[in-house]
Amino acid sequence: MFKNLFKPARKSAVFLLSCLAASVASAVDKNAYPDAAASDPAKMGWMVGAPPPPDRIIRFADGSYFNFPAMRWSVSNFRQLMPTTNVSRGLGAPVPLVRALRADIDKLSFVPLGAKQPMTWEQSLAANYTDGIVVLHRGKIVYERYFGVLTPEGQHGAMSVTKSVVGTLGAMLVADGTLDANKKVADYVPELAASAFGSATLRQVLDMTTGLKYSEDYSDPNAEVWQHAQAGSPLPKPKDYTGPRSYMEFLLTVKPLGEHGKAFAYKTVNTDVLGWVIARVTGRNVAQLLSEKIWQRIGAEQDAYFTVDSIGTPFAGGGLNTGLRDLARFGEMIRNEGQYLAQQIVPKAVVEDIRSGGDKDAFAKAGYDLLKGGSYRNMWWVTHNADGAFMARGVYGQRIYIDPKAEMVIVRYASNPIASNSANDPVTIPAFEALAKQLIHRP
Amino acid sequence: MFKNLFKPARKSAVFLLSCLAASVASAVDKNAYPDAAASDPAKMGWMVGAPPPPDRIIRFADGSYFNFPAMRWSVSNFRQLMPTTNVSRGLGAPVPLVRALRADIDKLSFVPLGAKQPMTWEQSLAANYTDGIVVLHRGKIVYERYFGVLTPEGQHGAMSVTKSVVGTLGAMLVADGTLDANKKVADYVPELAASAFGSATLRQVLDMTTGLKYSEDYSDPNAEVWQHAQAGSPLPKPKDYTGPRSYMEFLLTVKPLGEHGKAFAYKTVNTDVLGWVIARVTGRNVAQLLSEKIWQRIGAEQDAYFTVDSIGTPFAGGGLNTGLRDLARFGEMIRNEGQYLAQQIVPKAVVEDIRSGGDKDAFAKAGYDLLKGGSYRNMWWVTHNADGAFMARGVYGQRIYIDPKAEMVIVRYASNPIASNSANDPVTIPAFEALAKQLIHRP
Repeated sequence: MFKNLFKPARKSAVFLLSCLAASVASAVDKNAYPDAAASDPAKMGWMVGAPPPPDRIIRFADGSYFNFPAMRWSVSNFRQLMPTTNVSRGLGAPVPLVRALRADIDKLSFVPLGAKQPMTWEQSLAANYTDGIVVLHRGKIVYERYFGVLTPEGQHGAMSVTKSVVGTLGAMLVADGTLDANKKVADYVPELAASAFGSATLRQVLDMTTGLKYSEDYSDPNAEVWQHAQAGSPLPKPKDYTGPRSYMEFLLTVKPLGEHGKAFAYKTVNTDVLGWVIARVTGRNVAQLLSEKIWQRIGAEQDAYFTVDSIGTPFAGGGLNTGLRDLARFGEMIRNEGQYLAQQIVPKAVVEDIRSGGDKDAFAKAGYDLLKGGSYRNMWWVTHNADGAFMARGVYGQRIYIDPKAEMVIVRYASNPIASNSANDPVTIPAFEALAKQLIHRP
Repeated sequence: MFKNLFKPARKSAVFLLSCLAASVASAVDKNAYPDAAASDPAKMGWMVGAPPPPDRIIRFADGSYFNFPAMRWSVSNFRQLMPTTNVSRGLGAPVPLVRALRADIDKLSFVPLGAKQPMTWEQSLAANYTDGIVVLHRGKIVYERYFGVLTPEGQHGAMSVTKSVVGTLGAMLVADGTLDANKKVADYVPELAASAFGSATLRQVLDMTTGLKYSEDYSDPNAEVWQHAQAGSPLPKPKDYTGPRSYMEFLLTVKPLGEHGKAFAYKTVNTDVLGWVIARVTGRNVAQLLSEKIWQRIGAEQDAYFTVDSIGTPFAGGGLNTGLRDLARFGEMIRNEGQYLAQQIVPKAVVEDIRSGGDKDAFAKAGYDLLKGGSYRNMWWVTHNADGAFMARGVYGQRIYIDPKAEMVIVRYASNPIASNSANDPVTIPAFEALAKQLIHRP
């Protein structure tokens, strides 16, 4: 029933990148997939039993772990599939989030983009294959739901939401003077001088306006995305393999295409380069720095973790996994201009810079139909809508959505069969905007 | 300097079993290895740098991760090397251990077995390549030290200390009637009927008096230990591989040798079989059950974790990794007859059964020179010394040492170049006994 929708080995590599390429599968008919209830990973019984039934075993080595619907189990269990490194929360007591649950959210009604019939908020959860969702209003949990195999004690892949977290770390280092955004990447990592990144400024990397020959077109077997994935895989390389053997070795091979600074072009490798620069200047990889600068300071209830390549490099472009509530704490800290638990964790200027957004003209050139008028800054997506909402977005529906006017933060983990957010945006965008309106009008 | 002490691929597999075979390397001259200071993994800079220097990279796939001295980094970082599954502490606040540090411990003097000159406690730490050690007296931390790359926020491989933890879970299920120790393994896992385990009772498995054709002689390339390791490795199998592909599949192949119930024979597979029985009767694997029954109830400050095979089976025989203080909490709970934080976590009868010990005659037949008069019960080592001390022991120096009379618990993580505890026991045993005496005489 679910066979041949994707080639397993390719899908495997796709995850390793977990980037947000608008080109991915956007043309695929969503109706080709079983719905959320039929593909519920708990009901399907993946990896349950001693041993699990053969058709319910998910193995990393054969690549099948990212076939839909097995993927719905995998995104909550990456640690069981591959090596990882902790983002320690420290050893102190977590600071609980205050709960003020609202009963009016499930029945909230909105019309999906392009649809004629309204949909309720509760219906939107299944429509988007939601694994877990938390809504904070003025810092309190007003809504919280878990589905499938995700629980409050579990961790879920944040996919490209990782980029916004790493971008925040990068912007913090710019704010404190450790990094100069106008300097070139090669000023910090001389090895990259001969690559496309050598001549790019850190600002261009942070805003993804670099000119790179790097295709994330998964339908093209020669696309660079496959070499990137292969390089970063922690599995042993084939005997005849002669390519790069780590994320860093791959970055050295990226060639220029076009001019830097002219157009927004969403490419995962920018974040991996930022991670390299961060590691070089701080002596800490992004997992260690995230722990030190943020995770130990937000009252997190769980360690987070990054997947790593074969030499221990955290996958800065998409390897973060967290508990959902901890991601909510992170989002709330950002909404509150970097303040949280009576500390200034991220400089206010960094959040203001993100909220102000990036170059709208450069963004428009990338042609995101559903994000018209938006921009991209410090690896965050900025809507420039009336509420000044901005987002972190990851494939398969991962999201942090911050609406300053509504004093609202939504964090969602999901396992949509279609990678591109363009598949869930027609439901997600009006649903989140409707909830923001509700919270503004009936606070 | 460190080359050729072991064949890398073999050493790799050795870890995956991390068993405590008295035969391992006991004949190796300890002076052949650099000492604790010269092999300090922090000073050596393993995996430090972006990227690390080529001679400081530790890769899982090539097996070098378990070569000494790289192993000194690996034992504190298994999660960066292989897939794992969490033992959740839950989401509540940890319960801090009270500190009452004593200044008189470092200068404590004792004479190592077979030596003429005395050694101080402080000297013993380096002699045993200690990575971390915590001593509790009457439940308070009286001593705590970390070395190399282990920190209070880190986790370290418990190796075969895992067996005592899993044995405790097994004994708990016997105590509450879920398991009948007199029933046969095949009564619970019928698939094992044709293997050596089929006719063994659970009691024989718990006390390791099964008669098994299973050699842990690492110098023998045909020893079953290699097939066990290969089966449990999460890495892809070679194309021509036709053997078992998981821990469970390997257990099905173990053949009988001799009679059950006659002699103690320390074989890791007994614990893996116990883990299988536990998973079958409870519907939870040992990681899940350990979380539910113990880790969520002892005020742990960190999640623990198990390494897993390619189908997600936790390695019951040796795959547990924990924070050192959490292991101390576990030990203190056992010392206190299963009571901790005003709850009865392990039934008192289980701890009494462990302390009473197993069949001394059966134990004597195994010929442990340094543990004469001892016994083995529910996967714990019982000294039957004047204080009634009992232990959990793991290769390379891992230990929980509980001295009821001295009201003392010592937990130690280490990375001794020699696997067998017979290499560190001549220092460890008199050191721990001397400290117990000190605490009794000057409480």
